[in-house]
Amino acid sequence: MSDRAGGRVILVLNAGSSSIKFCVFRLDGRELSRDLRGQVAGLATAAKFVMRRGETLIEDRPLAQGPISHAGALEQLLDAIEVHLGGARIVGVGHRVVHGGLEFMVPTVLNEEVLHRLDRYVPLAPLHQPHNLAAIRAMLERLPGTPEFACFDTAFHRTIPEVAQLFALPPRFAAAGIRRYGFHGLSYEYIASRLPALDARAASGRTVVFHLGNGASMCAMAGGRSVATTMGFTAVDGLPMGTRCGSLDPGVVLFLMDELALGPREIERLIYHESGLLGMSGVSSDVRDLLASDAPAAATALDVFGYRAGRELGSLAAALGGLDAIVFTAGIGENQPEIRARICRAAEWLGIELDAVANARHGPRISTAASHVAAYVVPTDEESMIARHVQGMLVAA
Amino acid sequence: MSDRAGGRVILVLNAGSSSIKFCVFRLDGRELSRDLRGQVAGLATAAKFVMRRGETLIEDRPLAQGPISHAGALEQLLDAIEVHLGGARIVGVGHRVVHGGLEFMVPTVLNEEVLHRLDRYVPLAPLHQPHNLAAIRAMLERLPGTPEFACFDTAFHRTIPEVAQLFALPPRFAAAGIRRYGFHGLSYEYIASRLPALDARAASGRTVVFHLGNGASMCAMAGGRSVATTMGFTAVDGLPMGTRCGSLDPGVVLFLMDELALGPREIERLIYHESGLLGMSGVSSDVRDLLASDAPAAATALDVFGYRAGRELGSLAAALGGLDAIVFTAGIGENQPEIRARICRAAEWLGIELDAVANARHGPRISTAASHVAAYVVPTDEESMIARHVQGMLVAA
Repeated sequence: MSDRAGGRVILVLNAGSSSIKFCVFRLDGRELSRDLRGQVAGLATAAKFVMRRGETLIEDRPLAQGPISHAGALEQLLDAIEVHLGGARIVGVGHRVVHGGLEFMVPTVLNEEVLHRLDRYVPLAPLHQPHNLAAIRAMLERLPGTPEFACFDTAFHRTIPEVAQLFALPPRFAAAGIRRYGFHGLSYEYIASRLPALDARAASGRTVVFHLGNGASMCAMAGGRSVATTMGFTAVDGLPMGTRCGSLDPGVVLFLMDELALGPREIERLIYHESGLLGMSGVSSDVRDLLASDAPAAATALDVFGYRAGRELGSLAAALGGLDAIVFTAGIGENQPEIRARICRAAEWLGIELDAVANARHGPRISTAASHVAAYVVPTDEESMIARHVQGMLVAA
Repeated sequence: MSDRAGGRVILVLNAGSSSIKFCVFRLDGRELSRDLRGQVAGLATAAKFVMRRGETLIEDRPLAQGPISHAGALEQLLDAIEVHLGGARIVGVGHRVVHGGLEFMVPTVLNEEVLHRLDRYVPLAPLHQPHNLAAIRAMLERLPGTPEFACFDTAFHRTIPEVAQLFALPPRFAAAGIRRYGFHGLSYEYIASRLPALDARAASGRTVVFHLGNGASMCAMAGGRSVATTMGFTAVDGLPMGTRCGSLDPGVVLFLMDELALGPREIERLIYHESGLLGMSGVSSDVRDLLASDAPAAATALDVFGYRAGRELGSLAAALGGLDAIVFTAGIGENQPEIRARICRAAEWLGIELDAVANARHGPRISTAASHVAAYVVPTDEESMIARHVQGMLVAA
């Protein structure tokens, strides 16, 4: 462990409503390497702390008997991390922040004034933004003098042209913030950063990235810049997901209120937590469970998921004026050849020819040499994207 | 006029909330020819009656000083029609009915039992279905013994596969009727009936029809059968329209309630009557006005409309697994070369090459001879589609 003694680290934090995920990256010259990762889960009930170094579990214990605040959890988390840092110093902290509105197009150094501006986006992401900001406030208090940065899930999509951002509503609604922002931006930015080494044509051309995790979206990139994405004003739009419905006729929301007498919170619970793969199948939100199930509703859920992904691919190809490559990433995208195969087969009309053997071993290239459109599997890494941003900001400062 | 004396006619009725449109078709052997057409407008305020034979205005007068019921208006309308029928007898009546749910896949003879079943779809189309049914009830009373038929805007789309009909919600919602039905079906059916004479490949292959009127939707046809369409559970989904917003993140509806304190009726008014081209431009719901306007918001509205149509074309091409032809119809589709040109240019990636000269003279073919995907302008005729259905039902009876 002597090589870990001393030195500088960057801490990456991703604070949700009931958990705080973290990563610690060692900074050796210009090299970043992941050292520790883990999470505190169950903040609202009985917090549990888990930490790994590589694949080795080095902490796995209760953190609190009852509910604990973000500040309280971070306090203990920092103490626990310190034990394993071997004297290294946290030189920068990167926070994942879901919403940066229209104004935050790049990672931003955090201070009271920026926090105040970020508060304004709480109504646009009420399920995530308050927790992101609670963690930031706690950390600014805990580590005064250490530079901290916000990295935004929306920022990568600020290159989307206005025509694709606008809903067909009167302009006062866009002025009130109602427009398509898009999310998963740190994942897409990471994938975009990998494209030049992978495929020059995909990097400079027209590429659709499938970020298929429990949350799922797709992004159309022209020359590595976002020009369209399936998530919209909120993270419920677009593809069906683990528990989210994706695109839904707004008339359905009115019908749920008028005819089924659901209130806004019930509708929110329905479309965010009780729909998607879980809702359709009645079995599970996890693609693995659905693939293993012989329930007809499980098959239907997978069929709808694959069908919708195929339709969205056509729509995003239209945004790009054609297609040079597709990339699969995130939990499902990286690990489920059956799902990738369904999507690629449905996309044969666009010139994608799947290499079944390469797909079974997870690529990286899963299209045949003759395929007009290249298809890849690229593991995403939002934490290292955040760490890189922090590193860049530290150098610039 | 002696050739019009006696004989048999079919009456076609399209009853809305504030107007009743009608057409009278002469039946000569197996030939149908349009004889009279017109409408009663302003039912809720001061009804006005207009009737034409060909292009000749033969009636243009007030029908009532104050509000008048559908039954009252139809009573007077039938009296006025009779004067011009020259002794011809109404042998069948065809009613346009917006919603036939899942059960009405074909035109259906109307009686009390069918009306009772159609009442069940009022909650699915509260702005249209009650008026359709009010007119049917009045006509069944007024013309007992004359066979009357319901022709459904949803029926043509009953061939859409389940995977495309389902929202990603728990199955109990589909059981409660929440699924994508699609509308404009009588228009699409008419266009499908014209394809074989127009282009054998379009008829047997993969064709997307743009029904672009004040209401606008698109339909993907495989071999002349609907496999997907942009309108969904309601007629507000899909493309932006004259005053409707089209696709909208369901999270926006929640935001409008939570943050802007709008109620369901205010949201309904917003998304049905104050959005789309009118809402975006602040100028007009009419494409002609927007093309003539130099207001930046008018240009934005047209840009968003064209962009969304291009994205939907990609999505529908995915549903078809490629594209052989596109067809423009309805008010904008038939008469606005500038809008057709925008959509065709955005669709170059799919193999559409516009013939600008042919487009300027409204086709019928508006793609070049070399174009891989053929493009056409075909005027729609929902009334004659209904009359044909009635004719067919009379022969079958």
